[in-house]
Formats: sequence, C-alpha cells, structure tokens
Amino acid sequence: MSDSIKQMMQDIGQRARQASRAMARASSEQKNQALAHIAKLIRQEADEIQKVNQIDVARAKANGQDAAFIDRLTMTPKTIESMALGLEQIVSLDDPIGKITSLQKQASGIELGQMRVPLGVIGIIYESRPNVTIDAAALCLKSGNAVILRGGSEAIDSNTLLAQLIKEGLDAANLPMDAVQVVTTIDRSAVGEMITMTEYIDVIVPRGGKSLIARLMAEARVPMIKHLDGICHTYIDADADVAMAIRVCDNAKTQRYAPCNAMETLLVNQEIAAQVLPTLCKIYQDKGVELRVDALTRSTLEAAGFQNLVEATEEDWQTEYLAPILSIKTVADMDEAMSHIEQYGSKHTDAIITNNQAQANRFLREVDSASVMVNASTRFADGFEYGLGAEIGISNDKLHARGPVGLDGLTSLKYIVMGHGEIRT
Amino acid sequence: MSDSIKQMMQDIGQRARQASRAMARASSEQKNQALAHIAKLIRQEADEIQKVNQIDVARAKANGQDAAFIDRLTMTPKTIESMALGLEQIVSLDDPIGKITSLQKQASGIELGQMRVPLGVIGIIYESRPNVTIDAAALCLKSGNAVILRGGSEAIDSNTLLAQLIKEGLDAANLPMDAVQVVTTIDRSAVGEMITMTEYIDVIVPRGGKSLIARLMAEARVPMIKHLDGICHTYIDADADVAMAIRVCDNAKTQRYAPCNAMETLLVNQEIAAQVLPTLCKIYQDKGVELRVDALTRSTLEAAGFQNLVEATEEDWQTEYLAPILSIKTVADMDEAMSHIEQYGSKHTDAIITNNQAQANRFLREVDSASVMVNASTRFADGFEYGLGAEIGISNDKLHARGPVGLDGLTSLKYIVMGHGEIRT
Repeated sequence: MSDSIKQMMQDIGQRARQASRAMARASSEQKNQALAHIAKLIRQEADEIQKVNQIDVARAKANGQDAAFIDRLTMTPKTIESMALGLEQIVSLDDPIGKITSLQKQASGIELGQMRVPLGVIGIIYESRPNVTIDAAALCLKSGNAVILRGGSEAIDSNTLLAQLIKEGLDAANLPMDAVQVVTTIDRSAVGEMITMTEYIDVIVPRGGKSLIARLMAEARVPMIKHLDGICHTYIDADADVAMAIRVCDNAKTQRYAPCNAMETLLVNQEIAAQVLPTLCKIYQDKGVELRVDALTRSTLEAAGFQNLVEATEEDWQTEYLAPILSIKTVADMDEAMSHIEQYGSKHTDAIITNNQAQANRFLREVDSASVMVNASTRFADGFEYGLGAEIGISNDKLHARGPVGLDGLTSLKYIVMGHGEIRT
Repeated sequence: MSDSIKQMMQDIGQRARQASRAMARASSEQKNQALAHIAKLIRQEADEIQKVNQIDVARAKANGQDAAFIDRLTMTPKTIESMALGLEQIVSLDDPIGKITSLQKQASGIELGQMRVPLGVIGIIYESRPNVTIDAAALCLKSGNAVILRGGSEAIDSNTLLAQLIKEGLDAANLPMDAVQVVTTIDRSAVGEMITMTEYIDVIVPRGGKSLIARLMAEARVPMIKHLDGICHTYIDADADVAMAIRVCDNAKTQRYAPCNAMETLLVNQEIAAQVLPTLCKIYQDKGVELRVDALTRSTLEAAGFQNLVEATEEDWQTEYLAPILSIKTVADMDEAMSHIEQYGSKHTDAIITNNQAQANRFLREVDSASVMVNASTRFADGFEYGLGAEIGISNDKLHARGPVGLDGLTSLKYIVMGHGEIRT
C-alpha cells in the first residue's frame, strides 16, 4: 500500500474517532434534527442528485457494465424519495443511547446497571447502490456513532454528493461534520487499511456479494457484522398442513429470488412428500423455477408425471442460488433434516412446517441458525418485518448481534455503578 | 507447524463440535448432575490431586521457576475444596439456555422472540493456575457449550487428572465426554492452530498475562473475549466528599495490587487536591506504595512536607503496575480528567468521586469504559460483585460481552418465529 493512502486513511480514522465523542454525547433532538435536515436537502436537491448520478451511470455504461449493475446504480425520483422517507422513518425510531437497564442493588450496597452506548466508529464497505450511503449513515448517526463510508468506485460521484448533503445536515444540527466521511479514492488499498485499523474503527459492516465479504473476511482485523451467504432451508414435517406447506414454500422461494433470506433448499418428510410435492413443484415450474432433486424426490415427482428433472449434486446443497433454482431432498425424518441443515446451512434462516408442537419445539431449540421459524416463510427474516425499523445488515455470526441487525446492533452495553462510598473488603 | 499437531487439533475440534450439539440439547438437570458429580470426585480424589500436582511443582522448581509461579501452580487442600465449592455454586446458578425473551406479535401476524442458546465450542487458553481447568470448564458446561482447554505446559499433569474427573462427571450424567477436552501436548503450535480453527471453535477466552494476550491477539482468527490490560483511574472531583475520596481511593489501590481492576492512576481536581492528597498519600506511603506524581501534585505534597517524590513520566500514565506503585495527576477539571482517561485508559474500569449529580451523570455517559463508577472502588468490577455468580473473564472489547463476563457471555440470542402459515407480500 502506498504511504499516502495509509496516511489518508489514518487521518480519516483519527477525525472519525474525534467526532465519535461528540456523537456519543449528542441529544436525540440534535440527531433527529440532523436526519430531518438531510431528508429535506435530498428532496431539494433531487434533480442535482439525478444529474450527478448520471455521470456515474454513463461511466459504468462506458465500462461495459451489465443491465443489472446499471439498474442498481441508477437513482430515480422514486429511489431518491425513498431515501428521504427512510431518513424520516429513522427519526421516528426510539433513540437507544443512554438507556439504563436492570438497575439493581448488590450485596455490597452498590447499585449496578447497564447503559446502552454507541460502539464508536463504524466502517461501511459497500458496492454499487448509492442509497446505502444515506441508509447506513443514518442508522450510524441515530445510534450515536461516527461512520466511514467506502462505496464502490463506480458510484463515487453520487456518493460524494450524498455525503456533502449529510455533512450539511450534521452542521445544521451543530454536530461534527467528520461524523460522516466518505473515502473518495478509487485506490483499493484504502479498503485494506480500513479493515485493519483497529485503533480507529470499532466494527466494519460489509454490504455486498459473497466475493466481497470473503475477501474482507480473509484480511480483516477489525471485527465485522456480516453474513457470507444465506442458504436457507424449509423442512416440511410429516405433520404439516399440506395447504400451508405449499403456500409458505411457494412464497419462501418465489416472492423474490435475490434476497439472502429466500429459500434455496426444500426438505420434505417422505411420509408427506407425495401429498405436497406434485402441487408445489407444478407451481414452481409454472413460475420458471428450475428444480434439482435427489433420487427419492425424483421418484415421487415422476410417479406424478413430471419429466426431465435435474439431479441435485453435492454442490447444489452448498449453493446459494439467489435465482429461480431450488434444490429438493426427501428425508426420512426431522433428524435427517436437521443434520442436513447442520451440514450445508449457513446459520442464516431455517424453517419447519408442522402442526406437531413437540417437533416444532425441538426444531426451534436445536437448529443453530440466526433465525429459526415455525410455519412461516423464511422471507420474514428482515429488520423491518422484525420491527427493528430498519436494518444495517444481517449477521450469521454468534457473537454480538445475530440475525437482522438494527440500531441496537450498533451499540453496546457498559456497566455503570452508583455507589455511596462503598469499598471492597 | 507439524502436520501431526494440526491433525490432532483438527480432530479435537471435530469431536468438540460434535459434542457441542448434545450439550446444547442437555437439560439443566443433566448439566447440574454432571457438575455435582465432578465436585464429589474432586473431594474424593483430593489426595491424589495433590500428589499429581506435586509432580508439576517439582518439575517447575527444577526448571528454576520463581516463588510466585510455584505459588500459583501449587494445589492445597484449601484450593481443592474451593474448586468443589465453585462447582456447587455454578450448580445453583440459573440455567440461561432455552430462555425465550420479548415474544411479540408483529404486523404480519408472526410472533417473534429471542431464545438464548450456547455459543457452541469455547477454547480456553490459560497459564499456570490449574483451578482454571475446573472453573472454566464448569461455566462452559453450565451454559451448554463444549470446551477445549489448553493450560500451561507446567501444569500438564494436574490438568490431565482434573480433565479426567470432569469426563467421569459428564459420563455419569450421560453427557458426551468430548464436551471437555484438554490439549496435552506441550508443543506450542497447538495454540496457533486453536486460535485459527474458526470452523471448530466459536470463541477463545485467554486467561493470563499481558504478553500472552498480546501474542494471541496478533494471530487469532477466532473471536476472543479478553482484555489486554486494566489501567483503571479514579477521578476525585472538586465536589467530592473528602473522607469518602480517601477511603475509596485507598481501597481501590491497596486492597489488592495484582487484580486488573486495581487503580493505577489517581486524578485529582486542583480545587480539592490540598484537602485530599496529604492524608491519602500518607496512607499510601505507610503501606509502602511508591508514588509517581506530576508537577502540580508534587507542589501540593511538598507544601505538606512530603519529600523525595518520584516524577511521573509519559510511560507511567500508560502502565498497568499490578504492584504497589501509583501515578497521580492533578487536573484543572473533569474534562481534563476524562481526556486523560480517553488517552491513557484501557476501557476497563474508571470511577469518579463526587457529590455533584450532574458531573456524575456526564462522567457515566461520556467515559467509554466497560465499567464506569460513581463513589465506589474500582475493585468492584468483578463477576461475583456484579451478581453474575462467577466470571469466565473480563472483556474490554465493545462487541458482544463487555466488562465481567458470566454465563450469559458464553451464550447468544437467536431469533425464533412462530407463525401460522404467514407469507410475505
């Protein structure tokens, strides 16, 4: 890495650390004032945002990026308005900072509680969607943190303008403008520095595809809130309601294909396979979903007249398709289903469909995933659906926050002790 | 690293992962039965434990280890009984596993809650005290985890025997004996493998001196629950009760010198320095505490007849003495005290002595340490004093557990969803 990039990142880090102290002290009113002001500026500058965004879009097209990429990069009046609405929604959330919980007198006489405090400085590393600049910054600010944003180089002009609006909003509320900084160099070594400067950044939240996350995981020294992939399963138990199983499994796969909480593998108990699979797989095929099946599932489906079924390989069970493809396995019982999830799952979201409460309880307790569900679509694993108001990301890790991560995930609890001169004996 | 050590550690890791599944399912009764049985075995085998421990002690003496080292290594009837009592105390603690909190119906109709679950596999890396083998294993078992223990090579015989008793206790309760494994090789590369095998170990808890922790921090890929040092401060505010300040600051420094929560630096407001320092420093000197002071403190003390005071250097403010040495600085106000703590502290435990509620509230909110105290001795930062029942360690990190870490710190919360066939629209 060039010395100048290292120096630049260290400087950004120092200023973020400095700003984080003022952010930790900021009142809810100040923070909300800043967020509301940014929303106002975004609406005022909507035309300018689109104009600047077109520079990024033109460059991406010139570089030969594909349509999906251009789509993620492009800001429309609708996406701009939704950024403003997102900010207003975050204004309406409770401020977690400073809340004191479980204040209790101890044997010694001291009163012990825990106070919710910001983590300090958050680093966000993300790819082409420029709206992340606003969404992620807003969550970090509301939770009293400073933030360093490193978007994709392809969105650099859009991100720089959005960061400018954020800084104006901070200034209007008398908060330090360094509380939000955007890394504007396109030099990739800036990311390498960010993920290792533990003295200035408390946590990194990477938002992007699996290859980005894997690359960061290999080198990061700063802790990350992240998930690598979402290989989500639904297991249809022998005691499932057939109509419910079909409705929920249709939704879990086809409501949207790209989200990390979409189902990728369906597990079906052999006792109920013949009742469920033909109808469900007809729905999938009508929607253009390619099915990759094990031998037992194939027999069930062929007996019902299905043809030309693709055989699932070992690789299929390990794959997050994020596409209209579904792998299906027929299992002897719930234990086999749970073993499959243990072996191939990614600890993201897994569901059971059953009317048997004892089976449901075992599944809830024993499946070691961030979200475990009974009789619901895996698509519900989401910050908004969980009532968090918004989400900074989803964590498959076990330490700190697990599952959809909202404002609380950007905070920690410190112990506070209120004494009256107590000493230890 | 030799291939055979790597293979051995991978094998231990796989068996721990396997055992962790049974531990996660274990009932409170089973876990308590195992713990009580281990306590019984320890009392039964007290003579044998002492005999085997003498082998370690003799070897350590032959290797020329100093008296403090031998003292930490030696097991007496008293330390053996206190291991048994510690186990019985952990039996009496509430089992956190399986508890469901904050179950709430969401807009979609799904009911969302969080269930407390074990982390999975814990690795403990520790130095010469063999009682850690029992204490740490007991906390891991009670919280439904499997554990891999890597004690110091100097205690290898004691640790191997204690591990055998733990395995017998597990077996008696029909729990997998692989839930507790002791790494018995003295090859140091075993530690290098442990701290990087993220697929088998979920968290490492290192217990030992600063050099051990620093070495592990540099190379670990597995997350750690740890603190590097405890540079704890007490700030005596202008509005402090003088008698209380003297009593608490005496205790914070001198009740014991070695613990990480002992005060290392005293900060005194200049307005109250002349009222507090002469009496307090007389107490310190009478107890043999060496004082290292800044210029202002020196004038105050010299005016009161003190002589031959050592000048504090920049290094003093950065030093955790763990010894009868105290650095003292006179400050203009609380802001200067908080800046000093921010610059030199280790985010462990810091206290203010004041009768001014507004000052106390600012200090509690703004000082970014795991434990922040008002009018109490820093020595209270301890799992037992905080009512956690026991502690696996103390964390200065901000993610996951912060401060003294008890059973809850060895668990995580997963989301559980109870639906009735809901689908996302």
